[in-house]
Amino acid sequence: MRGSDMKTRQIIHFGGNYRARGSKGSTVLPWFTMPIIECVPNISEGRRADVVQGIVGAIAAVPQVTVLDSSSDASHNRSVLTLAGDPSSLTAAVMAMVEATLQVVDLRRHQGEHPRLGAVDVIPFIPIEGVTMADCVALARDVGAALAARFALPVFLYEEAASTPARRNLEDIRRGEFEGLAAKLALPEWRPDFGPAAPHKSAGAVVVGARAPLIAYNINLATDRLDVAKKIAAAIRHSSGGLRFVKAMGIPLADRGIVQVSMNLTNAEKTPMFRVFELVKREAARYGVAVLESEIVGLVPAAALVASAEWYLQLEGFAPDQVLEQRLRAKRG
Amino acid sequence: MRGSDMKTRQIIHFGGNYRARGSKGSTVLPWFTMPIIECVPNISEGRRADVVQGIVGAIAAVPQVTVLDSSSDASHNRSVLTLAGDPSSLTAAVMAMVEATLQVVDLRRHQGEHPRLGAVDVIPFIPIEGVTMADCVALARDVGAALAARFALPVFLYEEAASTPARRNLEDIRRGEFEGLAAKLALPEWRPDFGPAAPHKSAGAVVVGARAPLIAYNINLATDRLDVAKKIAAAIRHSSGGLRFVKAMGIPLADRGIVQVSMNLTNAEKTPMFRVFELVKREAARYGVAVLESEIVGLVPAAALVASAEWYLQLEGFAPDQVLEQRLRAKRG
Repeated sequence: MRGSDMKTRQIIHFGGNYRARGSKGSTVLPWFTMPIIECVPNISEGRRADVVQGIVGAIAAVPQVTVLDSSSDASHNRSVLTLAGDPSSLTAAVMAMVEATLQVVDLRRHQGEHPRLGAVDVIPFIPIEGVTMADCVALARDVGAALAARFALPVFLYEEAASTPARRNLEDIRRGEFEGLAAKLALPEWRPDFGPAAPHKSAGAVVVGARAPLIAYNINLATDRLDVAKKIAAAIRHSSGGLRFVKAMGIPLADRGIVQVSMNLTNAEKTPMFRVFELVKREAARYGVAVLESEIVGLVPAAALVASAEWYLQLEGFAPDQVLEQRLRAKRG
Repeated sequence: MRGSDMKTRQIIHFGGNYRARGSKGSTVLPWFTMPIIECVPNISEGRRADVVQGIVGAIAAVPQVTVLDSSSDASHNRSVLTLAGDPSSLTAAVMAMVEATLQVVDLRRHQGEHPRLGAVDVIPFIPIEGVTMADCVALARDVGAALAARFALPVFLYEEAASTPARRNLEDIRRGEFEGLAAKLALPEWRPDFGPAAPHKSAGAVVVGARAPLIAYNINLATDRLDVAKKIAAAIRHSSGGLRFVKAMGIPLADRGIVQVSMNLTNAEKTPMFRVFELVKREAARYGVAVLESEIVGLVPAAALVASAEWYLQLEGFAPDQVLEQRLRAKRG
């Protein structure tokens, strides 16, 4: 039905584009006039709240940049910041962040569970709206060159921005960590993409790149059988034959007496949440186990949720600009 | 998992509020600084595209108002406009729209399938973000009073803004239509809420009100059995014992050789899409019929889709501000 009308069937449109086909909820929305890039820097400081606040303050002082979140982990002694903005303002924000961090973080005195190569460890750029991955790759290269020039930091490019396949995976670049960095940089195959082939004495190196939005997605099982969680994780993750853009492991949630399939969805456009959820549910059923609940840790692009609603509701011919808030932003730019 | 980190379990937050409980995706988001009200005027002109374009132009000329859509139905000779803005700019837009419409639409020469009482037939205000239903009721009363004063139009308030229960339903107010309006207005129980107790000679009367967002939602069945669509519609609609906020009817889609359960969801927060879809699917199965697909006609609030993703993915502790675009707008205001 249309509005309060119980009879309308065919609708002529002057303005809108209700039934536009082709553009799906899970794609970047090309009509957005304001490009949105997400940037998720990981900083090697997660214990001194005042220090993290100071770094966040330096970023927030940059116009046109929004600090969406800041979360710190004491045991990892690491903070994950989430910024959003356009390419030029994000560049200014990253420069301000690195300058502020180098003044207060010294890796020679840093300890924490999480592997790290630099005081500012990783800087990924992520296309959200009105920009392509190619735009983010170009931004990563520009920012990497600027960081090397201004702070004499060795810079590695990773994932979509990697200069060679051997540098796609962050884990490979980070192997050896800060303590092994000097030796690693001395190897011909590990010359940095920008900057000196020697570590910054207090800040090590920085890894800059571009990647698809990453969703931290966990599914809790109504059982305490860790073997089941581990078997399901092995079945669904890419590394052992599962879905292309899923990293997964089975872990216990001891305090609740249940187990969890803990995942990173590294490209929810190509490996969507609903497919992961349904596959985990099916694998669990094979062991007589039910799915208790799932959870998203941190932020999720609207398109990932819209795509799930679309799939479960079997929506046909749905276009992202049917979402009122998106239509409003598209029209207002 | 958190970011690229396979180990993080407990996360301390300085800035964000990842796991905030209580505020669900299907509620109005209180932290939005810019209030968004939707207004969906129905105009008694759906055949002269240039005339409708002129009226839309008059609205679009008002600052701070966005025309989200304009769709016209020739057989109904009726157009449905969708506007969004804040209370004061929407008031200005409605005044401009009525002034423009009265100059070009004369109900004495209007014919169409759809029942109508006025040249501008219905003006509902709908809370979308950062506003309450009470705000929209107040706006409807203010706009109704202003329309009566400026254009000498009889004004009826309906739905949430109704002055008496007998005036809640649009169908009851509109019964008798333009042709029977003079006699209706003469009855004591049908004195208008504002304006003269006699019709505007060319424009009749206008019905102004406030209501929840309405979703035009259809489910197509993999059968040509109209009786099945009608039985399902009867089972799920409020009027015959079904779900509280569902209007439904079974209709044939002759060109495709299938049938459709055609619905209006009049309060998708209290009667959500996923529950309607699952109930229709179950009722269809009872007749050995499968659901082929569903469709949303026109716009849908993001919260309705997010709520469906939340339900199907069994998401626990999900907060609307985990949606990146919403967090971004909330922070930017």
